[in-house]
Amino acid sequence: MNYPSLLLQRAVGEMSRLPGIGQKTALRLVLHMLRQDADEVETLARSLVELRQGVQYCSLCHNLCDSELCDICRSNSRDKSIVCVVENVQDVMAIENTQQYNGVYHVLGGIINPMEGVGPADLEIESLVERVKQGEVAEVILALSPTMEGDTTNFYIYRKLQDLGVKISVIARGVAQNDELQYTDEVTLGRALAGRVPFMA
Amino acid sequence: MNYPSLLLQRAVGEMSRLPGIGQKTALRLVLHMLRQDADEVETLARSLVELRQGVQYCSLCHNLCDSELCDICRSNSRDKSIVCVVENVQDVMAIENTQQYNGVYHVLGGIINPMEGVGPADLEIESLVERVKQGEVAEVILALSPTMEGDTTNFYIYRKLQDLGVKISVIARGVAQNDELQYTDEVTLGRALAGRVPFMA
Repeated sequence: MNYPSLLLQRAVGEMSRLPGIGQKTALRLVLHMLRQDADEVETLARSLVELRQGVQYCSLCHNLCDSELCDICRSNSRDKSIVCVVENVQDVMAIENTQQYNGVYHVLGGIINPMEGVGPADLEIESLVERVKQGEVAEVILALSPTMEGDTTNFYIYRKLQDLGVKISVIARGVAQNDELQYTDEVTLGRALAGRVPFMA
Repeated sequence: MNYPSLLLQRAVGEMSRLPGIGQKTALRLVLHMLRQDADEVETLARSLVELRQGVQYCSLCHNLCDSELCDICRSNSRDKSIVCVVENVQDVMAIENTQQYNGVYHVLGGIINPMEGVGPADLEIESLVERVKQGEVAEVILALSPTMEGDTTNFYIYRKLQDLGVKISVIARGVAQNDELQYTDEVTLGRALAGRVPFMA
């Protein structure tokens, strides 16, 4: 494309490097910014730079935070004996949104994915093992995505923890709320049947 | 949503104010930036601020540019006697990409849209009239979108220019290349029939 302005071309080029943002979307966003006050654009730009420079990772659970320990690890009302293992920050936010969990987390920072060159050493697995060895953890809940990579990672963690005397559980798999049974894939349906629980238990 | 970090929350908030970017997309983009080098994020942020502060509008055609006059108005190889009237910068870029036009442009900065409170005075129509009055323009091509607002604006401009002795044309309307005739709407098809031209002319 021929851009009428080099400044425009550079801004569009930078924006279109973001995932899921093509040239046309980037151009639309950038032209939108040109209609905003310069202040607003500067606030946006500054918030990105300040985030990148200022964000920290909790030294215990590796969640994003603004200080040494995250709010969840610092809270007195959370049960420190239950640790929920998740892939990333979004997963923590998703589980927090359920308001059904009162334990703490351990953010792996990814899952084992040999195709993309991610091995156990790239993840926060060793620090999880250390955390369990401290002896204050009674249960580890594996809450990774139900994919092949998630299963592999679950199994790897299980092997690492199995002799440490900690309870290891995995989140339930079954048919999702409001899914139509006839369109549910056979693996999910098979697991839901195999994993049936007493009604009104 | 509960963000684990105030810096994260602020960055997501700023990003999600952009059009078409919801909270989830903003979070995905911002977390992507956290995995990038701080340099890259700063380059992106700086490119946005520099664009907003440095961009200018061509004093003749009101296209975006980096200096007093845009490249097209400054070029010696463009025919200054033909002026193509378009709504915005993207339209200039779209027409430039056809490589079929060698005249110059006049960017209105919008179209007349009473529902959104955009009247003729908000657009660069008076400056177009002035430009035609200078006497160097032989033809004005109206290239606005074929919508009710576009038609209204076309008609308004026509009324303003009709007594100035300039040729006024409008881009052809008809069936689009590769459209299937059976799915073409009746207005378009009717116009295409009414506007038929000699074959192999």
